[in-house]
Amino acid sequence: MKKKDEVSAFSYLDETIQRLSEPGLLLVSGNMKRANVMTIGWGLLGIFWSKPFFVVAVRPSRYTHKFIEKTRDFTVNVPGRGMEETVAYCGTVSGRDRDKFEERGLTMLPSRRVSSPIIEECIINYECRVAYKTIVNIEELSSSILSLCYPYGDYHTLYFGEILTVHADEKLK
Amino acid sequence: MKKKDEVSAFSYLDETIQRLSEPGLLLVSGNMKRANVMTIGWGLLGIFWSKPFFVVAVRPSRYTHKFIEKTRDFTVNVPGRGMEETVAYCGTVSGRDRDKFEERGLTMLPSRRVSSPIIEECIINYECRVAYKTIVNIEELSSSILSLCYPYGDYHTLYFGEILTVHADEKLK
Repeated sequence: MKKKDEVSAFSYLDETIQRLSEPGLLLVSGNMKRANVMTIGWGLLGIFWSKPFFVVAVRPSRYTHKFIEKTRDFTVNVPGRGMEETVAYCGTVSGRDRDKFEERGLTMLPSRRVSSPIIEECIINYECRVAYKTIVNIEELSSSILSLCYPYGDYHTLYFGEILTVHADEKLK
Repeated sequence: MKKKDEVSAFSYLDETIQRLSEPGLLLVSGNMKRANVMTIGWGLLGIFWSKPFFVVAVRPSRYTHKFIEKTRDFTVNVPGRGMEETVAYCGTVSGRDRDKFEERGLTMLPSRRVSSPIIEECIINYECRVAYKTIVNIEELSSSILSLCYPYGDYHTLYFGEILTVHADEKLK
């Protein structure tokens, strides 16, 4: 793995949104001693309150939820080619039962600005600090989304993470 | 103005985010008889509830707010080069007092999927239908943002607009 450099928040927007849709991105929260990784297929990027933001959605039932509540930060890691099976695995297995980092050979590296580690094997890493959160209020949600996404409740918490820094693999630049 | 074709939701992500930051984008809501245009410098793009979304923030005091509340849709229009003064003007003058379309020579065109018109002179147009909204809850907001952005209250409504279609100028393709 070559050295990663910090890049501006939106230098790799296309790669990030493309892989968010397929195969998904890896969301990490915790610290170097104990963290969890989960796969996300939803997310929003842009400018809010005059700062760059990455918004992620986590259901309260997810193991990751309690890590973000505690640390108030997270990283979003964009997998490179060849990591598709790992991404699929991290989306189906809970970190309560298994150490997904060890099982899939994912290496945690300390972040520069947040407590949650980044994943060395990923090609782009966003370090985000939660500046705002809100829980999906079904009274304001369209009925089609409600029935599709929330048949069992467990309404997502939306975490608005200010992007403090972004690292990218040398090869991308 | 050359013919615009529909393109996939995220084909012009870079251009959109870049111009969101500088000079801003033009948010339109209403119908072909009566609509308002305002400049936005904040917005989020991505995938949510398995669909493409454009999230915009509008303060209740803004004239645009009541249009979105009524129509439940909006368009986001990306200005091309040379429109900087128009964008600045639309960010400082209220549509309550002035017809910004007429004053700035902006042409409304009917959208394909929503009631709110698009602006012909812009190079990219997003047609969005509101699927969810939420009001900024200051209890969950970081104190620095609170004091910077809300000294007088008037907390933003966040409109989550599903992107139904995107048009782009031929030259961009």
